[in-house]
Amino acid sequence: MAGIHEELEPFFNPKSVAVIGATTRTGPGSFNVMENMIWFGYKGEIYPVNPRYDEVLGRKCYKDVRDIKADVDLALIAIPRHIVPSVVKACAEKGIKSVIVVSQGFAEVGGEGKKFQDEIVETAKRAEMRILGPNTLGTHNFFDNFTTSFIPIEKRDYEPIGVMCQTGLFFAGFPRLKYGKIVDVGGICDVDHVDIIRYYAEDPKIKQIFVHLEGLRPGRGKAFLEAIKGAKARGKDVIVMKAGETKAGREAVMSHTGSLAVEDKVFEGVLRQAEAQRVRDYTELQAVSHALLKLPRMKGDKIAMLTHHGAAGVMAIDILEEFGLRLAELSDEAKKAVQELSPPWLPIGNPVDIWPGLMGGPERMHRTALKAVLDDKNVDGVLLSIHIADYSAWPVGAYGHAEAIKELAPQYDKPVIVVPVGDRQEGTRRYLENVKNVAVLDNLREAARAFLALLPSA
Amino acid sequence: MAGIHEELEPFFNPKSVAVIGATTRTGPGSFNVMENMIWFGYKGEIYPVNPRYDEVLGRKCYKDVRDIKADVDLALIAIPRHIVPSVVKACAEKGIKSVIVVSQGFAEVGGEGKKFQDEIVETAKRAEMRILGPNTLGTHNFFDNFTTSFIPIEKRDYEPIGVMCQTGLFFAGFPRLKYGKIVDVGGICDVDHVDIIRYYAEDPKIKQIFVHLEGLRPGRGKAFLEAIKGAKARGKDVIVMKAGETKAGREAVMSHTGSLAVEDKVFEGVLRQAEAQRVRDYTELQAVSHALLKLPRMKGDKIAMLTHHGAAGVMAIDILEEFGLRLAELSDEAKKAVQELSPPWLPIGNPVDIWPGLMGGPERMHRTALKAVLDDKNVDGVLLSIHIADYSAWPVGAYGHAEAIKELAPQYDKPVIVVPVGDRQEGTRRYLENVKNVAVLDNLREAARAFLALLPSA
Repeated sequence: MAGIHEELEPFFNPKSVAVIGATTRTGPGSFNVMENMIWFGYKGEIYPVNPRYDEVLGRKCYKDVRDIKADVDLALIAIPRHIVPSVVKACAEKGIKSVIVVSQGFAEVGGEGKKFQDEIVETAKRAEMRILGPNTLGTHNFFDNFTTSFIPIEKRDYEPIGVMCQTGLFFAGFPRLKYGKIVDVGGICDVDHVDIIRYYAEDPKIKQIFVHLEGLRPGRGKAFLEAIKGAKARGKDVIVMKAGETKAGREAVMSHTGSLAVEDKVFEGVLRQAEAQRVRDYTELQAVSHALLKLPRMKGDKIAMLTHHGAAGVMAIDILEEFGLRLAELSDEAKKAVQELSPPWLPIGNPVDIWPGLMGGPERMHRTALKAVLDDKNVDGVLLSIHIADYSAWPVGAYGHAEAIKELAPQYDKPVIVVPVGDRQEGTRRYLENVKNVAVLDNLREAARAFLALLPSA
Repeated sequence: MAGIHEELEPFFNPKSVAVIGATTRTGPGSFNVMENMIWFGYKGEIYPVNPRYDEVLGRKCYKDVRDIKADVDLALIAIPRHIVPSVVKACAEKGIKSVIVVSQGFAEVGGEGKKFQDEIVETAKRAEMRILGPNTLGTHNFFDNFTTSFIPIEKRDYEPIGVMCQTGLFFAGFPRLKYGKIVDVGGICDVDHVDIIRYYAEDPKIKQIFVHLEGLRPGRGKAFLEAIKGAKARGKDVIVMKAGETKAGREAVMSHTGSLAVEDKVFEGVLRQAEAQRVRDYTELQAVSHALLKLPRMKGDKIAMLTHHGAAGVMAIDILEEFGLRLAELSDEAKKAVQELSPPWLPIGNPVDIWPGLMGGPERMHRTALKAVLDDKNVDGVLLSIHIADYSAWPVGAYGHAEAIKELAPQYDKPVIVVPVGDRQEGTRRYLENVKNVAVLDNLREAARAFLALLPSA
């Protein structure tokens, strides 16, 4: 397994790249990969290849990849499908070991497409060349400013997350999942999920691996399981989203990527063995990804909830039970601390209704209640469902909630998940987003899912 | 049932209000309801009542509510629980017919609290007075600038949505549910969900009713069902969120509001009979509310999906099947229109993968494909999962997607739901949020839930 990172590195960060099918058309809507590559800041050599031009974007253009004198680390092929097989052969003759086939219309559409794909695979095997694709956007790499995407990707902040997908869908990222590297394995004629998981597992820049897949190639189930286990053994979190849960979905997978979708139950078992996190939609994906990246693991499954609203407490009880989590039995010390600031008639339980006690001074109550549950040995994680008004608005002022969280949460080793109440939540999010041990999520269900991901067994 | 709107109107829009327990403490953290009332722009008379002061916020303060000479439409009581019963009696003597008891610690905590509540109810019955509460924030009304909330509520845009809840949780609203009127029925010693549903049903300003409840008073099940049916008969949509789904949840309901939680299965049956929309969390609530407010109803259950990504199509197939929706069998005309702009090897199905055809001109492809499915008689609703980049970013330019939607969707009578792909979605949302027949939702699951709410039988 050693060496897979080195072997696949040219796909993500090549020293030089030949763009076969380079075009002089530029600007929005031109989907010009070479233009994107330059704009995104790639520092290596780019060699455009297209018999129609002498020059593309100020660089000498080659008629044939074999005409390039210098070494070529990676070839990117975006030309009509019927000429792809001969161009892959040319790449093999040039000694290129890494090729991305962007073009579409191969095995996934059957017929001639299947024949073309077989030819490509045959060439690659003989030449010990690795092929990514066909039908792929290739890779995008924020760490090293490299892209092969013909859709321009914006420059932005990124996190130590490696994504692999069987689609270009995820290249634009998510509001709360800002990947650092991404690869579309496309039609998987060669490089597959297993290879990429191993690559990311060996990548020191990657802490979390997100796998989107529709199906695996026959016989790769065990290797897939082992690759995830290997990544986990290196301390990386693995999140998996598999499409094709239903029969109709599995049929659609066949026509989309030409790969055989795995029966969902079989797959579920594999993931459980590998202790990977399975997510079913974008919302769950973002909640789990964010929690794993930002929050400490729990030592047990016992949650304390602080709320301004008994009703939110009731909702949380339903949802925590549905997710198999437990409400902590609070220690006497914790109860006493809250009781002292609350009206004597108020029974102190969990969820902790901190509202009545708030009337005597909101900041003090927040600080006391939060400290009480963080100090409590019976509590593994803290959930807050509270109003945190927008700081810019009067008279909806700040009541010391967020300040208490910002001060206390980083001092403990427990996840603190905040579900803000109200129609203006951006201020809260911004105020707390970089606070250690704190995550702000949209609703109680997301919060419960995030806690699940932080269980000791997860 | 006639007259319920008139009877309860003083709770939402009184001509005059006595604030019993008025305070001179002002500013953030003071929870001064009278200050909020003035700040929010209430134009009626306010009479502060508190034996400790001669003047509150520039108004003459009365020792006793009976000292007020003018008529008082509504009394708002926020004083320690043990003196509430005698003050309610004083209100009865003054001839006040509407009373809100904000104070906490009554039947929901048992013991003496139960005794106090019984006394209040007895007084109200004798005096033909209606009581809202105890343990309530009261009401907030954007249409008429009235509030009884001691938590300040920001001025903002609002929609023709009437909310009732058994909590103050929802008073701050939601990013995508900007209610116009809200009421917290609290501990329900008198005015209950049934009354409020009837009130909103007769309210010409209200088009959609959202009901949050934990439990109903014994014997009110049938009236609740009839009230919802009555509202629906008047063309209003009704959305219900019920807490206490699990056994633990039902026990918590008991201690929160002192009301008996209904067994979930029984309740589910009631809602189905009433054809109300049931939602289980904030996310689902907002998706359904937004869809019902903005989108036309469907004539059938057949969805056409346009996507840039085969993978999103596969995910959508799974999710639509899970929600019991159907993918439309596209007409030959629709298929032909898309096929003409796509590579000849691409099979045209539903979901419609418009990506390959996009390469020849994105704007034309979007316009053609969208028009094809909107024109198609086999299609009842349209789902788009597409990249719509932020309009401010280069080179991630606009490709004519949003423009096509903005131009075409308003010309048809079908719902168009857009699920944007990518990490910067705010631009898309703003660009499309006021377009007729269009809703922008966060993910495919929300979209499927929204379509369910638009079924002819829903």
